[in-house]
Amino acid sequence: MKTPDDLHELAQQLRVDSVRSAAAAKSGHPTSSMSAAELIAVLAANHLRYDFSAPENPANDHLIFSKGHASPLLYALYKAAGAITDDEMLTFRQLGSRIEGHPTPALPWVDVATGSLGQGLPIAVGVAMAGHHLDRLPYRVWVLCGDSEMAEGSMWEAFEAAGFHGLDNLTAIIDVNRLGQRGETMSGWDLAAYRSRAEAFGWHAIEVDGHDSAAVDAAYREARDTTGKPTVVIARTRKGKGVKAVEDLPDKHGKALDDAEAAIAELGGVRSITLDVARPATGEPHSFTPAAVPPVAYEVGSKVATRKAYGQALAALGAARADVVALDGEVSNSTHAEDFKAVHPDRFFEMYIAEQQLIAAAVGMQVRGYRPFASTFAAFLSRGYDFIRMAAISRANLSLCGSHAGVSIGEDGPSQMALEDIASLRAVHGSTVLYPSDGNSTVKLVALMADLPGISYLRTTRGATPVLYPADEEFRVGGSRLVRSSDDDHITVVAAGITLHEALAAAETLAGEGVSLRVVDLYSVKPLDIDGLCAAVDATGGRLLTVEDHWPEGGIGEAVVTALADAGRAVRVTRLAVPAIPGSGQPAELLAGAGIDAEAICSAARNLLSTTA
Amino acid sequence: MKTPDDLHELAQQLRVDSVRSAAAAKSGHPTSSMSAAELIAVLAANHLRYDFSAPENPANDHLIFSKGHASPLLYALYKAAGAITDDEMLTFRQLGSRIEGHPTPALPWVDVATGSLGQGLPIAVGVAMAGHHLDRLPYRVWVLCGDSEMAEGSMWEAFEAAGFHGLDNLTAIIDVNRLGQRGETMSGWDLAAYRSRAEAFGWHAIEVDGHDSAAVDAAYREARDTTGKPTVVIARTRKGKGVKAVEDLPDKHGKALDDAEAAIAELGGVRSITLDVARPATGEPHSFTPAAVPPVAYEVGSKVATRKAYGQALAALGAARADVVALDGEVSNSTHAEDFKAVHPDRFFEMYIAEQQLIAAAVGMQVRGYRPFASTFAAFLSRGYDFIRMAAISRANLSLCGSHAGVSIGEDGPSQMALEDIASLRAVHGSTVLYPSDGNSTVKLVALMADLPGISYLRTTRGATPVLYPADEEFRVGGSRLVRSSDDDHITVVAAGITLHEALAAAETLAGEGVSLRVVDLYSVKPLDIDGLCAAVDATGGRLLTVEDHWPEGGIGEAVVTALADAGRAVRVTRLAVPAIPGSGQPAELLAGAGIDAEAICSAARNLLSTTA
Repeated sequence: MKTPDDLHELAQQLRVDSVRSAAAAKSGHPTSSMSAAELIAVLAANHLRYDFSAPENPANDHLIFSKGHASPLLYALYKAAGAITDDEMLTFRQLGSRIEGHPTPALPWVDVATGSLGQGLPIAVGVAMAGHHLDRLPYRVWVLCGDSEMAEGSMWEAFEAAGFHGLDNLTAIIDVNRLGQRGETMSGWDLAAYRSRAEAFGWHAIEVDGHDSAAVDAAYREARDTTGKPTVVIARTRKGKGVKAVEDLPDKHGKALDDAEAAIAELGGVRSITLDVARPATGEPHSFTPAAVPPVAYEVGSKVATRKAYGQALAALGAARADVVALDGEVSNSTHAEDFKAVHPDRFFEMYIAEQQLIAAAVGMQVRGYRPFASTFAAFLSRGYDFIRMAAISRANLSLCGSHAGVSIGEDGPSQMALEDIASLRAVHGSTVLYPSDGNSTVKLVALMADLPGISYLRTTRGATPVLYPADEEFRVGGSRLVRSSDDDHITVVAAGITLHEALAAAETLAGEGVSLRVVDLYSVKPLDIDGLCAAVDATGGRLLTVEDHWPEGGIGEAVVTALADAGRAVRVTRLAVPAIPGSGQPAELLAGAGIDAEAICSAARNLLSTTA
Repeated sequence: MKTPDDLHELAQQLRVDSVRSAAAAKSGHPTSSMSAAELIAVLAANHLRYDFSAPENPANDHLIFSKGHASPLLYALYKAAGAITDDEMLTFRQLGSRIEGHPTPALPWVDVATGSLGQGLPIAVGVAMAGHHLDRLPYRVWVLCGDSEMAEGSMWEAFEAAGFHGLDNLTAIIDVNRLGQRGETMSGWDLAAYRSRAEAFGWHAIEVDGHDSAAVDAAYREARDTTGKPTVVIARTRKGKGVKAVEDLPDKHGKALDDAEAAIAELGGVRSITLDVARPATGEPHSFTPAAVPPVAYEVGSKVATRKAYGQALAALGAARADVVALDGEVSNSTHAEDFKAVHPDRFFEMYIAEQQLIAAAVGMQVRGYRPFASTFAAFLSRGYDFIRMAAISRANLSLCGSHAGVSIGEDGPSQMALEDIASLRAVHGSTVLYPSDGNSTVKLVALMADLPGISYLRTTRGATPVLYPADEEFRVGGSRLVRSSDDDHITVVAAGITLHEALAAAETLAGEGVSLRVVDLYSVKPLDIDGLCAAVDATGGRLLTVEDHWPEGGIGEAVVTALADAGRAVRVTRLAVPAIPGSGQPAELLAGAGIDAEAICSAARNLLSTTA
């Protein structure tokens, strides 16, 4: 236990080092760091249990800076803890340095990238859920939150989820320094406002002077002693605390101090205190013994919706792998994640209609090494797009499943139709985008997803479609399937999911007219099977027809045409995609209305052939 | 004023008609409609002020079904109000009918499309803000919310914004029927939980039995009488109320009743009550007299950041047009929306760090005919992606500006860099995507945005770049500019924003080597100037080089290559884009690291020429 003087010195060191690193970088957020110096000093000195020499230790506490812009403070802590040198700390924001502008897992002690506000706490909820329900270890999750980010709805999704789950291993620390980037927050220093909100969501709340180390220490002790509910420590602080030139002043956000030397002197000079952060008691995570599930296999020619195959495949995967967990956004009877829940209820998490928290909880669980599959309607993954973007920066390994893709869902109408999901999820760095058309390929792809690095996305279809492939056929990510071909094909048709079946029907019709279609199942939209695509278009005189239940932008058509151009292939292409906002109607009517059904494919193929004969 | 018997009959008619339309469609959400029948009957009979014959009347109240799946109830109300016939009501969910599965503005009384839960209330906040601050009319905004959607963080963004702004013209009605799609909500019938949360966010809250018409009536009266804060009516209801086969039972969500005839009989049979909804008192919206702002013009060769030009252009636009309003997500000193605020403070709205509410408020204001410009860092528009998607379905006219695009922002690192914004916003139906490279073209494009239908997006750059075009030069949406060309160009380089300047530098370097680049400024990424692009690649032997500060997927490269393929042009293309997650660094270092700077363009051009000579 540190004395008040020790804690004061440590806090001042954290401030000085925040000023120094920002001065070295000539940018950064020193004032946002200085307000929280005591909050972090007391935590690290007296409460955090973390083995910096073994960040992979499952018993470690977790410390997440939801206010990622306070990175100078985090790095100052790492220096104090002996994890990085002073020299490395001062490479802040330099090219090639892992001491980045906002924290990323380039550093082994950083669980997830932050810097998009409102994400650290929801992700911490996922880590805390893993602690309670998966690892079953007594580690604690500590989250430093900014007061500005309390305006993000995702923070309240986190408050509700944590309260609902009674996550007493989670402590949120709100650094209420009153000032945002360009002025005061909505609540200013009204700590009671935060308190009443937190309590209304089922949290234990403590108001505290964030610069009174003894009070902060008592609050953390109270948080550790509180059972059955999470605790929030609401700390009144002053931005830029300790340096008169910036303390509690506007227009001092996100920049180095004008006179760093004077500020360092005012703070008592450079120190080199080393802090021996307490290590956790040893502990091993719980290991699950999965219920047995027979392998899933469908008969060729039978009909099954790929969303149903997803659920059954996931249940089987959960039997084969104890690290697989599933989360759903209150639509598990639509996505069929309920099939996983039925056999592995202790690894299923109902996240209700809170898609940001759904993604964030999954990100938090993969921090602890689990392989989460998170599902909802594909359209509603758009609600968590920023979380998916950030998960990629976090180098998270995360599988997403979006059901009810495209106009083929029918009567529910456009609000429920994902028509931009392929575009938006292709544009996530390092992502994998899969879109199977039958049950057996779905089963194989779901199993592969559990080993993919980064963000993988499976798009499933609402309606039942015929099973095309034998259950023992293998599929690889980055592959494709030639579903129909002959030696004298005229046109390559690239389709996936629902439109593959339309393409096959069109091929059947056109065969009677002497027109032969080569039909490619592009189940792997990213990465693409460029060799297979080149071979197909080479065999059909460069004639290409793409058809997708998606807007024309950023989907299968653009991906295929561009990949072929990159490979030096000139094509004569017709791209069929959804051209206008659909209304309600039956699936077949809407496919026809969008010009992506078999009849439209036939017309387009005839036109393409007549103009390129 | 209706008698209790009248109200009961009306509520039963709404239930019966909800059952009938779902029965006709063989799908839909009758049980979610039946729980709210009294809530809507009492509202329409005694409190709503709406002229169904003149939906454009500015004095009309607004009624938004945030729980859009209760559309059968809304349509039943429209029938009762004489706005649609019984026959049209029964075309529910049929192809071509405007009685869609979820409400859309295909109907003139529907302000915005709903069906993605958690959006109606935030949008209503925008309408209510327009009522208070822009129109200055006494209309009220009534919102029917589901209890399941209270899990969406966006609802709490709305609660906070409405409480902060003291929107006493806004009433939220929560239909607490306890049951979501697949089970009970987190709070079930714990009305006090909702009450304490709402109160903590500054609302007046009333708990009520949602099937007691007199109590509901009194609650609405209290809401109308409450000043200085919004009111939430928290109504305990039973899903499927009135029909034993479904009432308060699980697994009855989102489907027609098994025995509609029996249900109708149990509800007392078909009725044809016509309700004369009260019309509003006449009223005209406030008209603003804008402060004068001199036109913005930059000298060619001077340097200005396009984000700064955005702010100045918007200020000038606000002077020319009283209908233009601006909203920002607590970064107006970065996006430079503060320049608008400085001269038009009464048309500027600080939405704090709540990007969903930022977009939603803008959507709400355009409901009332204003032309909102909403800005934040481009990366953080991803937080509101589902709101943008739905705004397109709402046929909203909405301008977005995202600053700090790409790696060229420098030291802040990847969390702050938009690298997927072009892809995601191109994939919004009917959208326009603009990406100017200099100050004067920015000014022209901002002015054009105010007349564009649908969602328009302007991507701006953090750093200052040289002004390329004279201030009197005109720019059109769907155009491009040939910035550098000669009769013997070897390669067409397509660039925009920051990379255009890199391309020009590369052209200068290569000119010394006898390699001539034709440089196209693709300031209009969607729609594309396909004629201009064809002419350019035709003039350079099909050699094309695209370069963008964006991921390779869905951006400028894919858009250009695909458009050229659609137009029958075969190209030899090299696409330069950001290949890996950047770290921190100086802008020039990061552009070089990503291989999208002048030197990388030179290398790629030399390679392209040597392989295609």
